[in-house]
Amino acid sequence: MKKIILLLIITTTTMFAQIEKIEPPFWYAGMQNPELQIMFYGKNIAKYQVSVSNSITILNVKRTENSNYIFITINTKNVTATEFIFTFKEKNKVVFTQLYSLKKRRENSAQRLSFDASDTMYLLMPDRFSNGNPNNDSDALMTEKYNRELPGGRHGGDIQGIINHLDYIQDLGATTIWSTPLCEDNEAAYSYHTYAQTDVYKIDPRYGTNDDYARLASEMHKRKLKLVMDYVTNHWGKEHWMMKDLPTPDWIHQFENYTQTNHKRTVIHDTHASKSDTKICMEGWFAPTMPDLNQNNPLVLNYLTQNAIWWIEFANLDGFRVDTYNYAEPKAIAKWTKAITDEYPNFNIVGEISMRNQAQLSYWQKDSPIGKIQNFNSNLPSIMDFILSDALLTIFNEDGNWETGMIRIYDNLANDFLYPNVNNLLIFAENHDTHRVNHVYLNDIQKYKMTMAVLATVRGIPQLYYGSEIGMTGNKDSGDAYIRQDFPGGWEGDTINAYTKKGRTDGQNEYFDFTRKLFNWRKTKSVVHFGKMTHYIPENNTYIYFRYDSNDSVMVLFNNNSETKSIATDRFEENLKNYTIGKDVISEKIIDITKDIILEPKSVLILELK
Amino acid sequence: MKKIILLLIITTTTMFAQIEKIEPPFWYAGMQNPELQIMFYGKNIAKYQVSVSNSITILNVKRTENSNYIFITINTKNVTATEFIFTFKEKNKVVFTQLYSLKKRRENSAQRLSFDASDTMYLLMPDRFSNGNPNNDSDALMTEKYNRELPGGRHGGDIQGIINHLDYIQDLGATTIWSTPLCEDNEAAYSYHTYAQTDVYKIDPRYGTNDDYARLASEMHKRKLKLVMDYVTNHWGKEHWMMKDLPTPDWIHQFENYTQTNHKRTVIHDTHASKSDTKICMEGWFAPTMPDLNQNNPLVLNYLTQNAIWWIEFANLDGFRVDTYNYAEPKAIAKWTKAITDEYPNFNIVGEISMRNQAQLSYWQKDSPIGKIQNFNSNLPSIMDFILSDALLTIFNEDGNWETGMIRIYDNLANDFLYPNVNNLLIFAENHDTHRVNHVYLNDIQKYKMTMAVLATVRGIPQLYYGSEIGMTGNKDSGDAYIRQDFPGGWEGDTINAYTKKGRTDGQNEYFDFTRKLFNWRKTKSVVHFGKMTHYIPENNTYIYFRYDSNDSVMVLFNNNSETKSIATDRFEENLKNYTIGKDVISEKIIDITKDIILEPKSVLILELK
Repeated sequence: MKKIILLLIITTTTMFAQIEKIEPPFWYAGMQNPELQIMFYGKNIAKYQVSVSNSITILNVKRTENSNYIFITINTKNVTATEFIFTFKEKNKVVFTQLYSLKKRRENSAQRLSFDASDTMYLLMPDRFSNGNPNNDSDALMTEKYNRELPGGRHGGDIQGIINHLDYIQDLGATTIWSTPLCEDNEAAYSYHTYAQTDVYKIDPRYGTNDDYARLASEMHKRKLKLVMDYVTNHWGKEHWMMKDLPTPDWIHQFENYTQTNHKRTVIHDTHASKSDTKICMEGWFAPTMPDLNQNNPLVLNYLTQNAIWWIEFANLDGFRVDTYNYAEPKAIAKWTKAITDEYPNFNIVGEISMRNQAQLSYWQKDSPIGKIQNFNSNLPSIMDFILSDALLTIFNEDGNWETGMIRIYDNLANDFLYPNVNNLLIFAENHDTHRVNHVYLNDIQKYKMTMAVLATVRGIPQLYYGSEIGMTGNKDSGDAYIRQDFPGGWEGDTINAYTKKGRTDGQNEYFDFTRKLFNWRKTKSVVHFGKMTHYIPENNTYIYFRYDSNDSVMVLFNNNSETKSIATDRFEENLKNYTIGKDVISEKIIDITKDIILEPKSVLILELK
Repeated sequence: MKKIILLLIITTTTMFAQIEKIEPPFWYAGMQNPELQIMFYGKNIAKYQVSVSNSITILNVKRTENSNYIFITINTKNVTATEFIFTFKEKNKVVFTQLYSLKKRRENSAQRLSFDASDTMYLLMPDRFSNGNPNNDSDALMTEKYNRELPGGRHGGDIQGIINHLDYIQDLGATTIWSTPLCEDNEAAYSYHTYAQTDVYKIDPRYGTNDDYARLASEMHKRKLKLVMDYVTNHWGKEHWMMKDLPTPDWIHQFENYTQTNHKRTVIHDTHASKSDTKICMEGWFAPTMPDLNQNNPLVLNYLTQNAIWWIEFANLDGFRVDTYNYAEPKAIAKWTKAITDEYPNFNIVGEISMRNQAQLSYWQKDSPIGKIQNFNSNLPSIMDFILSDALLTIFNEDGNWETGMIRIYDNLANDFLYPNVNNLLIFAENHDTHRVNHVYLNDIQKYKMTMAVLATVRGIPQLYYGSEIGMTGNKDSGDAYIRQDFPGGWEGDTINAYTKKGRTDGQNEYFDFTRKLFNWRKTKSVVHFGKMTHYIPENNTYIYFRYDSNDSVMVLFNNNSETKSIATDRFEENLKNYTIGKDVISEKIIDITKDIILEPKSVLILELK
């Protein structure tokens, strides 16, 4: 009987077709925050009275300047997974109804674990990694079509391509994948980077389907790999469906003439900043194709929050990377982050704070003593260490003096006391916005090895960038496309298949084997994940530090000179006193540490002390 | 009767001549801290029992490894100014006695005021400023003799020379004098800089006497000028009398071989710093002629504290500048500073913290939120803004982009939130350790003017460096002597006397007149001393900011380009809305600020808004 009624209602709904969008399209029962604000979009939908079937309570009905939207907040407290019906009436007559689902959450969904310093993150751009499904390279509804000839065009990479190479990533030693965004980006050009999203509830069909994305996570979890979604809170694409018919004018920041952000995010804490500069910084657009969302509008903030949580539940995510985190309204974005971590207390979120001063970076990490100066708490568990990245893209080409060479690493770590949680810094040499390491170092593999050795052994969560592990190079000055080239072997017919040992050239294998050995070693080494550090002031462009805990001790020695250096070890007495030999992680050679240690030119030793 | 006994006793003392030094030589009644530790030095003095005449209590008698010292702590609580007698006995028989005085303090001595952001400080090196008394150029007991031919030799400048030119300094617009140290420095060479002091209770006879120094303060106070003493807590000179016969081996830091500090003072807060680096940083010597004092030894710390307080009382000082503040043991030097400011709650002390990161600098200011991260409070009211100095010695030669030119000033001030008290930063372009401004800018007076305009109008206490106000130049790379040359006219027979308008060349008068006008204007402008600031992100190497309070508003505009720039003023609406004209402080021209403001190439306007 019940079923028959339901069927009848669904039919009714379809008949009237008043609703064009419902977001979130469904939700989950048993969330910590019982309030759910559902956005219904349809021609003049705001004119109807709305009610809901029993067991659910409507807490609030919010209408805006645009009568095509209605936001209905319901209370899901104590409601188990179920379906229920919204009824839209006019003059007390039912005009149409809408079915809505609260789904069952996975077991322990709220307590899910996330990535941390025991992980190594592999950053890839899906359009450039591997084309697993050539059938979805173009899509009838998507403006930009496949064109692999165009450096900044769509090359056809997709979710299936990632799935096909999970074994490769796992074998390399990575444990976590950060893919740049996958939601629909229907811009006419450069949609491959996918930071101008046009539907944040839908995977771009050229990458696959929402179910493909969930399958990616599932395939990863089988391998104990973790999936991190790249979430964009600051802006959407100008082709986003909502931009054509804004729910309210202040859904985005609007100016009489196009106004770009001034990027000067110090205005946020600068006590002398002018109001006008601050407004342009926070409300100016990141790019003409990227309308700047107004997170200060509670409807927008709630939309973004629910969307983020929806993806965690739907795709079973292990973490977020948040794009341009501090381009959003600071207090609002802090609420967004808190709402998510309130739902998932162990969930890690790493924000892009592209600043170059440790105090300014620390400002944005959860419970920062620097933020506290201004009573600000971003709630953001993890931030990216851009200062280390700048150093790693410079130092191995430098002579060492008071300010250059290895001292740049030392000087950065010397300010670690400013951070509330250094182990939760994302550390990297390069990403999709920088030169590639192998460009900066002109494919000098010794310099690559030293770079990777820093990432594998200093505090924080190391992040690699797809392709550098096989020696891929890329000069950002030539254009972003040149640091985002296709992974060789990701496309049928590629002349080189760098995904396999056989397919790689000898040179590529040299890069790969080193990286694989280093990061597979790191996987189980709690001492470099969470151990203490002692470092010694660099002398003559050599740098020596130790990671240690109650069980293990690792000594790391860099010689950033073009000559061999002999290192007297008495200076390190406080760290060496219980040890006599060190086993090099890469060569597996045993080294007598009671004598001077010889360091080859431009080399690194990572010694497990015994 | 009483007098006869006293005479007898004094005679007795003289007869035995057991005491070579008593430090402090006298003290003051009614100090907030009633405990006074007197050091008696004499052959085997530690073997005697010591007692003291009534009304005074001995709290502690401290003997060290060296029997030539005895440290006697007395309680001066409720004791008024008086003289009393220490009796030294052996086997209960009086061997000798020693008279000691507690003098009367000046009225309101404890509540003395000090320098602050309403002041302008004039830094001079006494040996290089003016030779007021040619009779003391050399001294029989002092090793280094007068030799004005030697760039790094003693040139004969002295306290009388300063006194002779107080009117000049006052006329320039300075309100405070920081003279580099004046206590005895009996090194064989380079004693002119006087940072290797050999008797910290005695003015170097080549500068004058202790009474001359007190007279300097007194002459300054008549003119409402303030005297700041340059105090050295980190080290003494290797010829210090005590170095020949140390009270205890750990009075100074000693090493088997000469060990220089590594200067890497980040070890103080670096959670990864090695113990060995930290030891060398803190205990290594600043220079081979400068034994590093061990402030962790309470006897040393107390000695330094009492010596500092003694000079405040004796010479009636208005403040301290402390040399190499963070080369001393941090917790100990913080106690030293607290002891002084506990005695003189309004007394300002500015420490030399030569670091280049705002968080690291802030760490050292009293009540710093950065220090607090490590439960550290330096108690130091004022620190030097070396970051601003670096900028001022660079920017006017730079084109402006995202990181160079005027943005360096903006970026520095953007971090002001890190400091607990920005108004109490000492701001400067140059000092006795840097290039001179006029060297860096090759005597381009427009660049000099812009430099001075920054110092006169941003937050903090501006500090000038003697001679630059008449265009003196100096390249540090040629040697320190070249940035510390004699002020022309300070010596009889000098061909130019730059102390007078007539004596100065036209070029010198152009420098002087600008400086004089600017800093005399500043004297009464509370709005630039303590007003708020709003600044605007530099555009095209122009930089505009405002200082304002409830009464006044000042607009400062820099054009750091070699071309004229026209500045549209609508951007500054929030600061300009109540005003229509601005009067330029230097030219006194009236400027219509409702229209675009024209800025000449490489120029600054300081507009009082009306």
